[in-house]
Amino acid sequence: MSKFTGFAMKKLNEVGWVEKEKPECGRRDAIIKPLALSPCTSDIHTVWEGAIGDRKDMILGHEAVGIIEEVGPDVKDFKVGDEVIVPAITPDWEDEAAQRGFPSQTTGALGGWKFSNFKDGVFGEVFHVNLADANLAKLPENVKPETAVMLSDMFSTGMMGSENAKIKLGSTVAVIGIGPVGLCSVAGARNLGAGRIFAVGTRPNCVKVAKEYGATDIVNYKEGPIDEQIMEATDNEGVDAVIIAGGNMETWKQAVKMAKAGSVISNVNYLSGADIVPLPREAWGCGMANIDIATGLCPGGRVRMERLASLIEYGRINPDSLITHKFKGFDKVEDALMLMKDKPKDLIKPVVLCD
Amino acid sequence: MSKFTGFAMKKLNEVGWVEKEKPECGRRDAIIKPLALSPCTSDIHTVWEGAIGDRKDMILGHEAVGIIEEVGPDVKDFKVGDEVIVPAITPDWEDEAAQRGFPSQTTGALGGWKFSNFKDGVFGEVFHVNLADANLAKLPENVKPETAVMLSDMFSTGMMGSENAKIKLGSTVAVIGIGPVGLCSVAGARNLGAGRIFAVGTRPNCVKVAKEYGATDIVNYKEGPIDEQIMEATDNEGVDAVIIAGGNMETWKQAVKMAKAGSVISNVNYLSGADIVPLPREAWGCGMANIDIATGLCPGGRVRMERLASLIEYGRINPDSLITHKFKGFDKVEDALMLMKDKPKDLIKPVVLCD
Amino acid sequence: MSKFTGFAMKKLNEVGWVEKEKPECGRRDAIIKPLALSPCTSDIHTVWEGAIGDRKDMILGHEAVGIIEEVGPDVKDFKVGDEVIVPAITPDWEDEAAQRGFPSQTTGALGGWKFSNFKDGVFGEVFHVNLADANLAKLPENVKPETAVMLSDMFSTGMMGSENAKIKLGSTVAVIGIGPVGLCSVAGARNLGAGRIFAVGTRPNCVKVAKEYGATDIVNYKEGPIDEQIMEATDNEGVDAVIIAGGNMETWKQAVKMAKAGSVISNVNYLSGADIVPLPREAWGCGMANIDIATGLCPGGRVRMERLASLIEYGRINPDSLITHKFKGFDKVEDALMLMKDKPKDLIKPVVLCD
Amino acid sequence: MSKFTGFAMKKLNEVGWVEKEKPECGRRDAIIKPLALSPCTSDIHTVWEGAIGDRKDMILGHEAVGIIEEVGPDVKDFKVGDEVIVPAITPDWEDEAAQRGFPSQTTGALGGWKFSNFKDGVFGEVFHVNLADANLAKLPENVKPETAVMLSDMFSTGMMGSENAKIKLGSTVAVIGIGPVGLCSVAGARNLGAGRIFAVGTRPNCVKVAKEYGATDIVNYKEGPIDEQIMEATDNEGVDAVIIAGGNMETWKQAVKMAKAGSVISNVNYLSGADIVPLPREAWGCGMANIDIATGLCPGGRVRMERLASLIEYGRINPDSLITHKFKGFDKVEDALMLMKDKPKDLIKPVVLCD
Repeated sequence: MSKFTGFAMKKLNEVGWVEKEKPECGRRDAIIKPLALSPCTSDIHTVWEGAIGDRKDMILGHEAVGIIEEVGPDVKDFKVGDEVIVPAITPDWEDEAAQRGFPSQTTGALGGWKFSNFKDGVFGEVFHVNLADANLAKLPENVKPETAVMLSDMFSTGMMGSENAKIKLGSTVAVIGIGPVGLCSVAGARNLGAGRIFAVGTRPNCVKVAKEYGATDIVNYKEGPIDEQIMEATDNEGVDAVIIAGGNMETWKQAVKMAKAGSVISNVNYLSGADIVPLPREAWGCGMANIDIATGLCPGGRVRMERLASLIEYGRINPDSLITHKFKGFDKVEDALMLMKDKPKDLIKPVVLCD
Repeated sequence: MSKFTGFAMKKLNEVGWVEKEKPECGRRDAIIKPLALSPCTSDIHTVWEGAIGDRKDMILGHEAVGIIEEVGPDVKDFKVGDEVIVPAITPDWEDEAAQRGFPSQTTGALGGWKFSNFKDGVFGEVFHVNLADANLAKLPENVKPETAVMLSDMFSTGMMGSENAKIKLGSTVAVIGIGPVGLCSVAGARNLGAGRIFAVGTRPNCVKVAKEYGATDIVNYKEGPIDEQIMEATDNEGVDAVIIAGGNMETWKQAVKMAKAGSVISNVNYLSGADIVPLPREAWGCGMANIDIATGLCPGGRVRMERLASLIEYGRINPDSLITHKFKGFDKVEDALMLMKDKPKDLIKPVVLCD
Repeated sequence: MSKFTGFAMKKLNEVGWVEKEKPECGRRDAIIKPLALSPCTSDIHTVWEGAIGDRKDMILGHEAVGIIEEVGPDVKDFKVGDEVIVPAITPDWEDEAAQRGFPSQTTGALGGWKFSNFKDGVFGEVFHVNLADANLAKLPENVKPETAVMLSDMFSTGMMGSENAKIKLGSTVAVIGIGPVGLCSVAGARNLGAGRIFAVGTRPNCVKVAKEYGATDIVNYKEGPIDEQIMEATDNEGVDAVIIAGGNMETWKQAVKMAKAGSVISNVNYLSGADIVPLPREAWGCGMANIDIATGLCPGGRVRMERLASLIEYGRINPDSLITHKFKGFDKVEDALMLMKDKPKDLIKPVVLCD
Repeated sequence: MSKFTGFAMKKLNEVGWVEKEKPECGRRDAIIKPLALSPCTSDIHTVWEGAIGDRKDMILGHEAVGIIEEVGPDVKDFKVGDEVIVPAITPDWEDEAAQRGFPSQTTGALGGWKFSNFKDGVFGEVFHVNLADANLAKLPENVKPETAVMLSDMFSTGMMGSENAKIKLGSTVAVIGIGPVGLCSVAGARNLGAGRIFAVGTRPNCVKVAKEYGATDIVNYKEGPIDEQIMEATDNEGVDAVIIAGGNMETWKQAVKMAKAGSVISNVNYLSGADIVPLPREAWGCGMANIDIATGLCPGGRVRMERLASLIEYGRINPDSLITHKFKGFDKVEDALMLMKDKPKDLIKPVVLCD
């Protein structure tokens, strides 16, 4: 095969199938054939909101589990035929930002994010992965591809939100937004020691999974300002950590208002809709309330994927609960993406089983 | 009542009932009547191993839930009749060590440990608690006294072992020793993000609870050196964290041998039996292997107890599984203590319900 | 003396001398007579900007070194006649926020700040300090009162800005604003391992001290946008940490723009002038650039003061360089305060020697 | 040149010149010609103590500044003729241990240490460096080679000792051993915020540099047990951090005895002389005194070297004070090494200027 097909952003607001030359496999790289794929809200932002600017015929997608079709001559730990988890973020581990402790920011801000950002994504019959030894993880034998594909971005990003929130044993945490990333933040909070977990959202499917993943209180934003609801529920104490996984710019004001003096607001949301993220000066103690703000881009790379996979293997997380829609056949990636765009009420995450 | 009875260490190797004057309640202090009590292995060390030297007629015990009988005039948040969790460690929160971040070490090394160390413990019809507002926590309505008494020392100490071990999401952890504290370390590891958890022990009761609390692999030290078993099970990678909650001085050598370069060994064991804790130079990379060692004394105080209680309230931990023997009536504290001394095979923890 | 005089905020926009009843000394408290005092920009904000709302006849001031005139019966470590450093922030160390690690936020947001906020400040012939043992520090013999008074707020706040910025050995740091607090942030950055330190400011006096305290590059905001100047000077790499110690709301946008992906923005500025603190969405990587934001209120208490005093004793910092104006006599506190209000070009900090 | 000469460990207890084939330059690697070299005590341990076992004709040395003679085709940031600082430790940055945060332990325990350990060291007319882009740092224009060669191991290791010690602003620190690494630990403690710094040693040269680098108190071990001297000097409070940079196995007992409850003991010493590192059980609070122990291997790589070089450029450290003996000419590396073996009283570090 020297040509292959992929589902691409043809330009802003337009998607479609493209045919491309098969990518060359660098000495340390791999070429992968997908086994399971999942579209991400970011793909929607990219195409229909211009989140990363215009692109021409760029194949979409960054959540994949696949089988290795080719490896470069310097790859040591993987061989053709291996089934692997592919992280959404594939850092350049020798870069200075990785040495500083920020692998997702290698080669520049957000530079660890390559798929469907500045190179073709994973929605192709094949796709290229840089630094196979450092960025791929073997799919454990007892883990299904569609389960593991939830790790690439959803669990890695969502759980990062909880890691950055500096949760202590018994902390009270609020997770705003319970789309798939927010649900993973709930799972993260529960796995990092939170006691009470407020989850803000309304969709019945999501509420059910939120409870399964560890939420103890559901807050419906239609029933009043969420900061007021949470302050009331906590006897005006507020919470030790807020994880922003949805909402809009106003959410930031509410987050600060529900945060204790001495707490962390941790963002996992792609922020859009205004040029300014507004922090409410007074509720923020005029900048003196010890309310810190943490941000980050999905952690990637091999060790991250291995560790998350270990959480599946040992029964700490159950990614399958996120999957509400399954498609069979690689060509269904188009349907899956459009489903993500349409967001029917019962959707959390679709997956495409490629075989 | 101006006199009260308590079960005491009369001197080294001798216990018995004593009658004492009721303690005076300081301005910020409280006098408590116990609702649930539990003896600790430390009480056994104290009496029959001379762990803290000799004592005369010192009432034993430091694990209690009780009801307030009297509060000092400067106590604001508690009143007579409140049911409270009493931490084993009751720091002097204004002390310099607390300001440095080490409340358990206030007024000197291990100085936060007062009960049954340098003042009468909780095995009395009444006992005295310093700094009620800072050191007591309200017993939540839906939590039973015998459940909460497991927090005073067992869960606070055991989970500290896991907190100090710097567990990351998906870390592999070994817990050596699955007596009650080690079991709580297992629960701590699971609640702090561990993937695979090795638990080293043999008693069927303990093994069962270890699994319930999150252990994924049980290592039987009778079947070979535990470091060799764990190295084999991990393909010679070793573990990210070792929690020492039992064993003897040789355990330290095994712990270092099973620890990855880049890991933490965290101690929660009262070390005894030799003057020297031996670290194996070569396995420790001649002091250069990035294998750190963390120690600590049970965290105490109000916020600690409130946060741990929140873990019960929200279903994160189930202390009841530790309780293998229940006694009714305060006077049964003697039987409970002797049971702890005799350590029958089916024992994990006894509790005494005082009413 | 049953009455005493102090210099007060009579109401918004009005100051003057007041006579009051001498405060009562609580059991664990102390009554202090000032030896050295210094007004703070916060006092100006309080009176003429309504920063904390209206107050009636509230004595101003929170920076003092003094001599103990009275101690309560439960005070153990201090006695009448002791010379002491008084921190601006005097936490309630038993409070839950202190147990959580945020002593400056005890009893509520910013609640550690009592002087000239919700009780009389230190610009009185005498003033009251809560929890003497926990909140006072002995003035070392070889340190002058006017030197040590710079620790109460200026060095404690400014150096906190650097501590929160997570500076690594060799980090590049920008300090925006080189009034007294910003200068202390420069000293903090230098003492915490920074290599290159940009200091943003123009006043010749301040520039001179900035260099003495460790600044290696001076950035004049009159010569162009400071983010552009700093990006150019760093070959577009940006800095590892930004400390905001001045400027206005626009400063936040510049701070984010000069911050590396993987960095911290640490605030020590009392924020005012608008209801919203604006973070620039795009420069902030849409919330994914690993640019964290840290805030805090001046750390207080005994250990903090002792440790900062140790930095003077051992020659690590030289607070005297901050002092540009000295007044003799307690009654000169009025002149010192008005000088702070007028901010002549050669002013950094005035002190009043009370005897 | 296809052959080159180097000064080697011929076998245990024997050194000499060897001629070897010029190493091949891998695609991402570099071949370096040394400009400045320095022998290390480790070289002595290697040859005459068998510290790493036997070796045959292995060229010694791991401290170098050089000029690039050849780069592989995939090297992007360096070219022939560039002057570079070469770290003693050259990690494989894609390895799992680097992803875990422990680059010095890549490919196995201590695996980042390649030079003069499991490949030829830098005491050759040329030597090979793996991963040039990730492991070399440009020599700043205003920094001399002999100054920068002190960074490769001495400052990187010594300052790591202080970083691991979790020094706070105003902490009291003890550095045991003031050979070159210990002196760098003193400089590290001073640059990380220590107030009082005890330096334990006797050689006049070293004492002088210790004071220059920030030591405030010199402790002579010939005048009594050092723990007793330091406890007395601190009014029995002890120190917040102990850095072990010399001594013997007994030193560990003293270190624990002088450490506060709530402190860190940080090792930078290559431990030898016994199989067991002995921790004193009782002084260690029976494992409960919150006295942690940190270890590590010299941090390497490009960012580390750049950051340390920045400390020279901006005047934070002055490595030249370590250099007591200068040799001219590459062939003098033999004399320099033998000097390190003989350790005359006036020696701190020798350097060889190769041209």
